[in-house]
Amino acid sequence: MRKVCVVITARASYSRIKTVLLHLDRRNDVELQVVVAASALADRAGRVSEVIKRDGFHVSEEVSSLVEGDTALQMVQTTGLGLIEIGSVFKRLNPDVVVTIADRYETIATAIAASYLRIPLAHIQGGEVTGNIDEKVRHAVSKLADLHLVSTLKSQQNVISMGEDPKRVFLTECPSIDLAKNIEHRMPLDFSPFEKYGGVGQQIDLSEKYLVVMQHPVTSETDFARTHAANTLAVISRMDIPTMWFWPNVDAGADGTSKEIRRFRELNEASKIHFFKNMSPEDFLVLINNCSALIGNSSVGIRESSYLGIPVVNIGTRQLGREYAENVLHCGYEPDDLEVAIRSQMTHGRYESSHLYGSGNAGYLISEVLATAELTTDKKLNFQ
Amino acid sequence: MRKVCVVITARASYSRIKTVLLHLDRRNDVELQVVVAASALADRAGRVSEVIKRDGFHVSEEVSSLVEGDTALQMVQTTGLGLIEIGSVFKRLNPDVVVTIADRYETIATAIAASYLRIPLAHIQGGEVTGNIDEKVRHAVSKLADLHLVSTLKSQQNVISMGEDPKRVFLTECPSIDLAKNIEHRMPLDFSPFEKYGGVGQQIDLSEKYLVVMQHPVTSETDFARTHAANTLAVISRMDIPTMWFWPNVDAGADGTSKEIRRFRELNEASKIHFFKNMSPEDFLVLINNCSALIGNSSVGIRESSYLGIPVVNIGTRQLGREYAENVLHCGYEPDDLEVAIRSQMTHGRYESSHLYGSGNAGYLISEVLATAELTTDKKLNFQ
Amino acid sequence: MRKVCVVITARASYSRIKTVLLHLDRRNDVELQVVVAASALADRAGRVSEVIKRDGFHVSEEVSSLVEGDTALQMVQTTGLGLIEIGSVFKRLNPDVVVTIADRYETIATAIAASYLRIPLAHIQGGEVTGNIDEKVRHAVSKLADLHLVSTLKSQQNVISMGEDPKRVFLTECPSIDLAKNIEHRMPLDFSPFEKYGGVGQQIDLSEKYLVVMQHPVTSETDFARTHAANTLAVISRMDIPTMWFWPNVDAGADGTSKEIRRFRELNEASKIHFFKNMSPEDFLVLINNCSALIGNSSVGIRESSYLGIPVVNIGTRQLGREYAENVLHCGYEPDDLEVAIRSQMTHGRYESSHLYGSGNAGYLISEVLATAELTTDKKLNFQ
Amino acid sequence: MRKVCVVITARASYSRIKTVLLHLDRRNDVELQVVVAASALADRAGRVSEVIKRDGFHVSEEVSSLVEGDTALQMVQTTGLGLIEIGSVFKRLNPDVVVTIADRYETIATAIAASYLRIPLAHIQGGEVTGNIDEKVRHAVSKLADLHLVSTLKSQQNVISMGEDPKRVFLTECPSIDLAKNIEHRMPLDFSPFEKYGGVGQQIDLSEKYLVVMQHPVTSETDFARTHAANTLAVISRMDIPTMWFWPNVDAGADGTSKEIRRFRELNEASKIHFFKNMSPEDFLVLINNCSALIGNSSVGIRESSYLGIPVVNIGTRQLGREYAENVLHCGYEPDDLEVAIRSQMTHGRYESSHLYGSGNAGYLISEVLATAELTTDKKLNFQ
Repeated sequence: MRKVCVVITARASYSRIKTVLLHLDRRNDVELQVVVAASALADRAGRVSEVIKRDGFHVSEEVSSLVEGDTALQMVQTTGLGLIEIGSVFKRLNPDVVVTIADRYETIATAIAASYLRIPLAHIQGGEVTGNIDEKVRHAVSKLADLHLVSTLKSQQNVISMGEDPKRVFLTECPSIDLAKNIEHRMPLDFSPFEKYGGVGQQIDLSEKYLVVMQHPVTSETDFARTHAANTLAVISRMDIPTMWFWPNVDAGADGTSKEIRRFRELNEASKIHFFKNMSPEDFLVLINNCSALIGNSSVGIRESSYLGIPVVNIGTRQLGREYAENVLHCGYEPDDLEVAIRSQMTHGRYESSHLYGSGNAGYLISEVLATAELTTDKKLNFQ
Repeated sequence: MRKVCVVITARASYSRIKTVLLHLDRRNDVELQVVVAASALADRAGRVSEVIKRDGFHVSEEVSSLVEGDTALQMVQTTGLGLIEIGSVFKRLNPDVVVTIADRYETIATAIAASYLRIPLAHIQGGEVTGNIDEKVRHAVSKLADLHLVSTLKSQQNVISMGEDPKRVFLTECPSIDLAKNIEHRMPLDFSPFEKYGGVGQQIDLSEKYLVVMQHPVTSETDFARTHAANTLAVISRMDIPTMWFWPNVDAGADGTSKEIRRFRELNEASKIHFFKNMSPEDFLVLINNCSALIGNSSVGIRESSYLGIPVVNIGTRQLGREYAENVLHCGYEPDDLEVAIRSQMTHGRYESSHLYGSGNAGYLISEVLATAELTTDKKLNFQ
Repeated sequence: MRKVCVVITARASYSRIKTVLLHLDRRNDVELQVVVAASALADRAGRVSEVIKRDGFHVSEEVSSLVEGDTALQMVQTTGLGLIEIGSVFKRLNPDVVVTIADRYETIATAIAASYLRIPLAHIQGGEVTGNIDEKVRHAVSKLADLHLVSTLKSQQNVISMGEDPKRVFLTECPSIDLAKNIEHRMPLDFSPFEKYGGVGQQIDLSEKYLVVMQHPVTSETDFARTHAANTLAVISRMDIPTMWFWPNVDAGADGTSKEIRRFRELNEASKIHFFKNMSPEDFLVLINNCSALIGNSSVGIRESSYLGIPVVNIGTRQLGREYAENVLHCGYEPDDLEVAIRSQMTHGRYESSHLYGSGNAGYLISEVLATAELTTDKKLNFQ
Repeated sequence: MRKVCVVITARASYSRIKTVLLHLDRRNDVELQVVVAASALADRAGRVSEVIKRDGFHVSEEVSSLVEGDTALQMVQTTGLGLIEIGSVFKRLNPDVVVTIADRYETIATAIAASYLRIPLAHIQGGEVTGNIDEKVRHAVSKLADLHLVSTLKSQQNVISMGEDPKRVFLTECPSIDLAKNIEHRMPLDFSPFEKYGGVGQQIDLSEKYLVVMQHPVTSETDFARTHAANTLAVISRMDIPTMWFWPNVDAGADGTSKEIRRFRELNEASKIHFFKNMSPEDFLVLINNCSALIGNSSVGIRESSYLGIPVVNIGTRQLGREYAENVLHCGYEPDDLEVAIRSQMTHGRYESSHLYGSGNAGYLISEVLATAELTTDKKLNFQ
């Protein structure tokens, strides 16, 4: 029985991989090993590890490695400590294939440990283009990986162009679309986020139009994290529309964003913004599926929202270069431009569903490849 | 003044980069920072750090990170510990550009630390093709690097094909050829290796024909390291030709090779093989420039020897895929084949000099690029 | 000139050592090196490093080592990572003597690194008795230390009884009393904590009687951290007296305490409790010097408050075993007992000043010893 | 069933603990967990891990943590890395009590990890007195330990005087004496060390009088390691008596000693010294039990040799302060003094057996305490 070890290092990664885990878990030819590491273990972002267990998966190992602090040095230390810890974990679990997801900085520790221990490495969501440190990490992981499970036709071409063997590059769609498909029928909003998740700030009337904001600090612009957050807060505040705001990832710059949110809250107790730390991936999708616009720079605006047809205002450089459907309106950090963009998307309303990132079948496709593809660690630069 | 930080992690890397250091050191627009790390600090391979100081360079920092043991797990631990240590070093030295050399497993720690700290990274000898873990490391480092200093036309094409911006890929020749050019006039052998370096085993008459052997364990075949060493020892021993044998790198599998050498020595006290732990790069080149054939799997056989026209028997898979000139005869591990190959090369004698890896100008070219190229950490997958 | 390296790993440690730094800094025979590490660098507790710089000290090195999470495993990882990092720092700073303070778990990394590098180690506040993991750490550090700078007569006897050479055990008073002496004249309260430090919760009328609470999780009872916090919040809330509440240290259990505080705040928006994350040591002392009772388990209640004569209710086991003056009333976690104890102390009012922990001269005495005592790393168990 | 986890970090530690493992392994009320770490895993000193398995014990975990190099900085790094690794191991094995042996520098990682994870810690061979870094480590570990299993009456008094609870200090004898008792009947020498262990150098006639040398570098005198080795080699060489010489531990300074041995061998091929890297503890004891004198600074000369009555010349400061029986003659590094001392001990011949370190019952006594003693992590300084 093939042992497939999936390493999850962040909240967003779990959301993206969940349907893959479901398909792997019910196969007879696969033993699923789930490893939870780095910020997926840290409390500040809500213990993702607990969510995974509640969803019925067995967590084989938890790997603590997140060094506190939000400078780049701690990214280096977290990766180094993660490498030391996960090497021992792989040696113990002895998987036949290791799966790493996307492009967060700490995923390179997973990729290196698997490579050096000569365990075949599968990489999900390679070949996409964004810029920033994610860009370097993503393609470096592709060069360490032996199997590529890509989301779009363009990504497939990119990975092959980079010199990977076409026989090992599989267009499996993006697993995040599976979740979107699962919840698209849940309209109107069928739960109370305030009762279920608490959060802080005023209770908002959600029967009317509301916005959702999720804005992460940009790794290469951490010095501006606080200003970026302040701009968006100012615009949302003066528009005075009910808004659900989500806390950022634990990344370089996150402390700046968090501080700005706290400062804002102390000074604007009557604002119509309600702040949440975390939400189950499904509930979050249901929430944005019922909103009038999603604002920020989360990849959810690019991926899941393309399938769901949600109007999105994408702020700044974080998603620059990524393929997007017509539901996305790009915009800089300038407050007036931002307000215009939000109003324009609210006016437009719902878009047609796009299958750019998939049709909801990724969980099945990826699990098939992981369970049956030939496994090897032997590769060479391959240009036809 | 631009601060250029060169990280040296192994004996062979220093040899390759030395003329670059010389050119950088005498420039007025560059402050050279030399960091010595990992196995370049470890005693078993001869303290490279001391050699570097004796050559007149100031060593800015020494980074201890080599975890003892020769399994793949220790490669992972060494890389993790190296990452933690070198992150602090870069923060302290605050270089404008970091230089990493070739493809040893621990060089990825240098590349990650520089990338995450947003220090532009220059990579020397990217784009070559070999197989094994080096192959993965080399191309992953290219995807983390911002400047590429490649040795051959083919490597240049490869790096650009992988999606790197052509404006940042510089064909600078291989710096190892510079050293070869410097010593090519030193014929016949003008020093006694026994007096200068000691070593163990019988003294050999070097006025006659002699062989040189340098055979490293192959990272992906560590279980066979001892057998591979034993085969070569057996062939050399029965041919009964004076031979200078060099101890392998501190790599996974090195202990197997070392054990076999020790066992051989105890049983064959009268053999004509003399064993050395280390030698200055120049003296080593002079030694092979005067030998009748170089045997093993060192990249010196592929690079420097191509320029010098030395007959080379390259054993096994370690250099597979690398471009080579006509001086190289490839051969498997089978003892009889090996003996035939050696005799064939000894009969052929000297080859014409090939400029495949350069003409001896790399130190100048690389230092020019490092001193003057535009520095940025901003990059995106680039396919024309 | 003797190089004295003081390692500060937490907010409370800086408070205790500040007058020592002042005295060391103005001496001509000492070069002061300040190293800031672990939770003293972490943002959640307020960047102590910035406070130290604002106070005019040069910070020689910052050592990031705090692994995120509040379980005991992260205490182990933080200590291991701290050891690796601080070893390099000591090698670089090359101090003549290293100073470590008190008994937090990560101080043992400082002590081990200095000992193994054969740098004489001075330990401040050894010989006290408390229980919990602090107790083990404190005495283990004493056995690694070469100079002991103790606060009380009893501590001096204890350290000597443990087998330390009496000639190297100096009764230098507790430096925390120096700060208390400096601010004892500042009555009534001469600054607005709300304007200066923000914090969250209702503004309180401080011209009337008010309480101050500082309750840390107990390392050996982390499972109860949340209940302990909840009990005290419930009692303070029902007594309805204006209260200034301080966030706990970043320790195992701190997340439980923090969560309970957040939960309380959401449910009790009108409560008379105002919450602070951090305050300068001086301002904090002025604040408690003007309160009607200090409640919790901070060592400030035992030390500084004894000199200032502040009525203290010490809750639970954290300070058990420590010497205390008559100003301290001990009490369990039971809510009714706690309320009785608080009322009793409020009724009693101010106590006489006690010199149990010193008279305000520790900074001078400790700096004298550090600057002039004979330094050696050679010691043996010494029982007369 | 009580889970007892014994951590073995070096060759000598295994030798000392072996009879304890045998007794623990055959009990019904104990599940034995053996963890092999640090230099006990490293190849240079002979894989102790393999020896342990061959002796029939199950090795639960192997912990790689030895950072290569012989300076004090690597001792710090090895301890830090070991702490990180062993914390995860303890979390996984979840033992009821952890056992650490004696006073090597890396044992403090075991002690800290157990303490912070609140696992009761048993310490074997506390309370002895030596000097050097071992002295600090040994007593610091005692202050972290909850159960003390001491070898001599004096050690028992020392541990209690240091403030440990007398009820938790058990005089269990030294387990190394058990091994000595087991082999004392094996006279004359009943195996050929050359056939069984190889080694290098001339074969020696062992039917006549022979010496055994085991001399470790002294941690606080590493700069002199090479000189100390050279002196002893010179004396032994000029006395021209057949000698079995053992390679030193992997410690700071070991490289100096090793180099000197290698240099000596190259220059003195005809010498009557035969060099061994490792030998089973039993065979080593049989070898010294049949020699005419044991020379060096190994604790075997102090402990096992006292029971066996072997004439011992103890060189230098390494064992200074330790209790010894009348079989030991102390001596400095001066060559002439050393020669006089050796001749004097050879003339004297066998001594009476001393029970200073025990009568051969330690394995049983220690296993009884580990299996049945009350376990707690709660302790306080305790002076009656």
